[in-house]
Amino acid sequence: MSNVERILEQINSPQDLQQLSEDQLPHLAEEIREFLLSTLSKTGGHLASNLGVVELTIALHYSFDAPKDKIIWDVGHQAYTHKILTGRREQFHTIRQKGGLSGYCKRDESPYDVFGAGHSSTSVSAALGIAEARDLRGEQYNVIAVIGDGSLTAGLALEALNNAGAKRRKFIVVLNDNEMSISRNVGALSVCLNRIITGSFYNRLKGEIEHFVKTIPGIGEAVFKLGKRFDEYFKGFITPGMLFGELGFKYVGPIHGHNIHQLVETFRNVRDNIDRPTLIHVVTRKGKGYQQAEQDATMYHGASPFCIDTGQFVKQENAIPSYTEVFGETLVKLAQENDQIVAITAAMCSGTGLEQFAAQFPQRFYDVGIAEQHAVTFAAGMATQGFRPVAAIYSSFLQRAYDQVFHDVCLQNLPVTFALDRAGVVGSDGPTHHGVFDFSYLRHLPKMVIMAPKDENELQHMLKTALEYPGPTALRYPRGAGLGVLMDAAPHTLSIGKAELLRNGDDLAILAIGTMVQPAMEAAKNLQEDEHISATVVNARFVKPLDAELILDIARKTGKIITVEENVIQGGFGSAVMELLQAAGVDAVSVRCLGFPDQFIEHGTQNQLRRAYGLDAEGIEKAARVLMK
Amino acid sequence: MSNVERILEQINSPQDLQQLSEDQLPHLAEEIREFLLSTLSKTGGHLASNLGVVELTIALHYSFDAPKDKIIWDVGHQAYTHKILTGRREQFHTIRQKGGLSGYCKRDESPYDVFGAGHSSTSVSAALGIAEARDLRGEQYNVIAVIGDGSLTAGLALEALNNAGAKRRKFIVVLNDNEMSISRNVGALSVCLNRIITGSFYNRLKGEIEHFVKTIPGIGEAVFKLGKRFDEYFKGFITPGMLFGELGFKYVGPIHGHNIHQLVETFRNVRDNIDRPTLIHVVTRKGKGYQQAEQDATMYHGASPFCIDTGQFVKQENAIPSYTEVFGETLVKLAQENDQIVAITAAMCSGTGLEQFAAQFPQRFYDVGIAEQHAVTFAAGMATQGFRPVAAIYSSFLQRAYDQVFHDVCLQNLPVTFALDRAGVVGSDGPTHHGVFDFSYLRHLPKMVIMAPKDENELQHMLKTALEYPGPTALRYPRGAGLGVLMDAAPHTLSIGKAELLRNGDDLAILAIGTMVQPAMEAAKNLQEDEHISATVVNARFVKPLDAELILDIARKTGKIITVEENVIQGGFGSAVMELLQAAGVDAVSVRCLGFPDQFIEHGTQNQLRRAYGLDAEGIEKAARVLMK
Repeated sequence: MSNVERILEQINSPQDLQQLSEDQLPHLAEEIREFLLSTLSKTGGHLASNLGVVELTIALHYSFDAPKDKIIWDVGHQAYTHKILTGRREQFHTIRQKGGLSGYCKRDESPYDVFGAGHSSTSVSAALGIAEARDLRGEQYNVIAVIGDGSLTAGLALEALNNAGAKRRKFIVVLNDNEMSISRNVGALSVCLNRIITGSFYNRLKGEIEHFVKTIPGIGEAVFKLGKRFDEYFKGFITPGMLFGELGFKYVGPIHGHNIHQLVETFRNVRDNIDRPTLIHVVTRKGKGYQQAEQDATMYHGASPFCIDTGQFVKQENAIPSYTEVFGETLVKLAQENDQIVAITAAMCSGTGLEQFAAQFPQRFYDVGIAEQHAVTFAAGMATQGFRPVAAIYSSFLQRAYDQVFHDVCLQNLPVTFALDRAGVVGSDGPTHHGVFDFSYLRHLPKMVIMAPKDENELQHMLKTALEYPGPTALRYPRGAGLGVLMDAAPHTLSIGKAELLRNGDDLAILAIGTMVQPAMEAAKNLQEDEHISATVVNARFVKPLDAELILDIARKTGKIITVEENVIQGGFGSAVMELLQAAGVDAVSVRCLGFPDQFIEHGTQNQLRRAYGLDAEGIEKAARVLMK
Repeated sequence: MSNVERILEQINSPQDLQQLSEDQLPHLAEEIREFLLSTLSKTGGHLASNLGVVELTIALHYSFDAPKDKIIWDVGHQAYTHKILTGRREQFHTIRQKGGLSGYCKRDESPYDVFGAGHSSTSVSAALGIAEARDLRGEQYNVIAVIGDGSLTAGLALEALNNAGAKRRKFIVVLNDNEMSISRNVGALSVCLNRIITGSFYNRLKGEIEHFVKTIPGIGEAVFKLGKRFDEYFKGFITPGMLFGELGFKYVGPIHGHNIHQLVETFRNVRDNIDRPTLIHVVTRKGKGYQQAEQDATMYHGASPFCIDTGQFVKQENAIPSYTEVFGETLVKLAQENDQIVAITAAMCSGTGLEQFAAQFPQRFYDVGIAEQHAVTFAAGMATQGFRPVAAIYSSFLQRAYDQVFHDVCLQNLPVTFALDRAGVVGSDGPTHHGVFDFSYLRHLPKMVIMAPKDENELQHMLKTALEYPGPTALRYPRGAGLGVLMDAAPHTLSIGKAELLRNGDDLAILAIGTMVQPAMEAAKNLQEDEHISATVVNARFVKPLDAELILDIARKTGKIITVEENVIQGGFGSAVMELLQAAGVDAVSVRCLGFPDQFIEHGTQNQLRRAYGLDAEGIEKAARVLMK
């Protein structure tokens, strides 16, 4: 590269990009890959998915005219090249850091980010809405949704495809097919897609395409013709072309996702010649161009900083097990004793710590793909037959299945356990991923028992407790390392609805839940030492049912209560405490609720965010001092 | 029928049914239709869908061995014949009445109700879970999900199909294809299904099947052969057989859904001969056997009492317009003035009062089918382009799109208005349909503005207010007639977050929202007259943002507050008031929250239920007296 003029630094907008000759684009792709690697090896971030769409992104911005044309990135974690090409190159080193660029698309960040995301499978619905808006206004522009094959397993995307084809509006879905969601992909649709890109047909087609690319100027046209011929090979079963055709889409593909010329030709051809819903099937490789990431795309999906040469992640000094690991190990332990325990994940086997379980109990492990709704109702079905399903789903992703938790689990009082990893703030993934609503969206559902452990040792006991309780239970715990406490040798059962009194004091009481118990203890110690304020501290353990007896007793004794939780205040643990007090007619109590305020929480490290919102010892101390005045 | 021996009275279980000869079954079907008509013409209920599945249900219970075999009814509103055949005939006249049978399947009600429902599209997921449970245990029984074609447009069902085929477990999906959800069906999949049952192919097939039925004993086998031949007719496009085949299902059909012999043969054949996921495509007619309902199945979907001879509904004396009607009329009025207003429904055009809008603004009206998630994200897409989408979705159905409300609307602060009809208790539909969680599931989402009108006149003003507000808004109002108040000639804008002080009193304050404002006023009047308790009454109008100034002022003055809402107490309006008080440090206030308790609310009339839970003038008075002690 050294003897070639650098291109990337000249590109500050898609318009700059469009000044390049097509021949320069592969060089640009190379520079972007280097730039991505050099930046992300330091900052961490979504590496593999972004390496996979470098050419695709360049070709999109070269062929379409954003922001007039609307490009909508599903999930958005693969939009780094898009960010780099749309004026954010110089800030790119700030990605996913507090105050820096978001790791996803965000409308506030750029007019090129047409529709924000973070959760999967929204892009086709949004694109269809935008296309409708365009046509109602009689405007002329292109609308392009870029969606991965993994995202197609989610009901929202399937609903959208079912609607989109029927509408016959002109818009484009680019299917970025890398045969993966975050880990291996699942489901019948993916089988159908895979057949076309893996078998001999694809190889033959690939050869023919390469031949055409070399010999014929009008490549796009040729690809269409090939597509037609390609369908001919299939007689007995359905091609994606037929499948999407049936859904009302014109199908174009498969396109080699790392051949930038083919991509540009295809995009231009579709842009200029097709006036109805079109699906362009692009085959890419996650991690493309970086050997380590190509070989293990899952490991480099959300990567922490690493050494480019070796691919090795920078060692975290922390030998403390994560909550996720403790959950996974405990579940294996419990499942050894109880063969009714089954585990369900929605494409997050590794993220939720279920890999060991999957290896040891393959028959009792279910990865349903990105399909949280199905995961929950499927779990409910198993529970009707006496099984004990554990649905391990991130807090913010279970939001997708709120109605199923209500309708299929709670209403039928079925013993499904929800293991909500990534509860509280998650750090650099930001507002789409923070799990700060779960107390509030679960607490009003009758029958639900909700727990949050103060440390990783309590987590193992709570999991055992949940799996012995004859009804729905939710267990929420944070991303990242535990506190490093001593682990009991075996999990034991806790009493449902019983809190733990950690410290006795007369002046006020701090009722803490989950991650806030440790800072509450620290605050109490400081208050005692610095200002002779003597605080009771309670580890609530259960947000529902509350330990009414203990809490009312303490409220009557101290008359001053601070509740503290890593959840929004609205409808959360603090509200539960106030509801309890009013129902019991215990009125002469001053309550102060600490938690996240009524606003979306930005990205940043977990500790930065907790501190910024007063959810640490200092914040609790401050609240206590105010309350004591 | 009079000279034929009555059969129905002898059937108290599927085992009784199985004692009948196959020749008796059509008679039984006739008796059940008469029974359904004579009962439902008095009680009201889901008529058309139940008339459509009489033969299907008889054939299922004749061919399978429930409760050992598990039959799972999607939605459950079509399970009346199932109830009648499984020991609930004598209680059937109590259906949908307080203390009587549920209008849906319910596990508590019968061991034959394997999986409860009410919301659509859960059956395939649940059935798959049950089939997994069976196979893990090494047990032998059949699992059958019965799902309508309308329910197949929902993401949950599509997720399940995508998973089910890949699993290869033996289980059966009976697709009850009547070309409708509640109204006309939507989407590309339904086009595919319809093509097979409407065009000449179907007629030809029907003729051939009828020929076979008459001439050949082994009908089931013949149907299979026909199915194969049938596929041959299609070359250029996909048949349901190919489509479902692609999803991993063996496809059998289409079967004439009112030919009981063909149904029985087919079910037996599949039961005995197929060991993998099988989809049996049954074509039925909604309202079958009752001319009026066949002609207008939508009108007789959820029917009120009617005259069997004429089909006319028993006149409701009430000339007061419903909230639904006022919503629909106001929206039309506002849309005439503002061409950026568009309306979106998820298969509930009539139920949400959008018929007039659809007729007058067909270009700006979207029925996306049963696909609440897509409805919301689609709305968000339109809103990014400056449109003002109104998503009219029942309160309990918006639960399906909770994550989309969060992720696509609130997080992006887009001006989508949610018109939540059927908020509060809905009456005879019961716990699956009560809209008693919406304050709680919406209130903790940042940016959301939540309103509830005290009467139908305020509803029009709130709708206008919502449509002028530059962010997400939700408007919730109850099922049924308004209060009969005078309507202002034109809607006007209310101040966001401003409550209405209705009455001044010194002893205590009643803060009421929505339907609870009128009983609050009545209670205040009675308290004054009977006990000289002088109560302030506030119509809160907004659950979010609250009128902090007014509420804090009143709290300080009276020191005693009763909040009252037609929502669960957990996380609802009352909690919002308490959160406000603690944040402002206003402590010396006794608060009592009235609302639904932490349990699922049974079915019954709206007034029965409100009274039973103290949500009427009497209940408020009682709370006031206790608080004044």
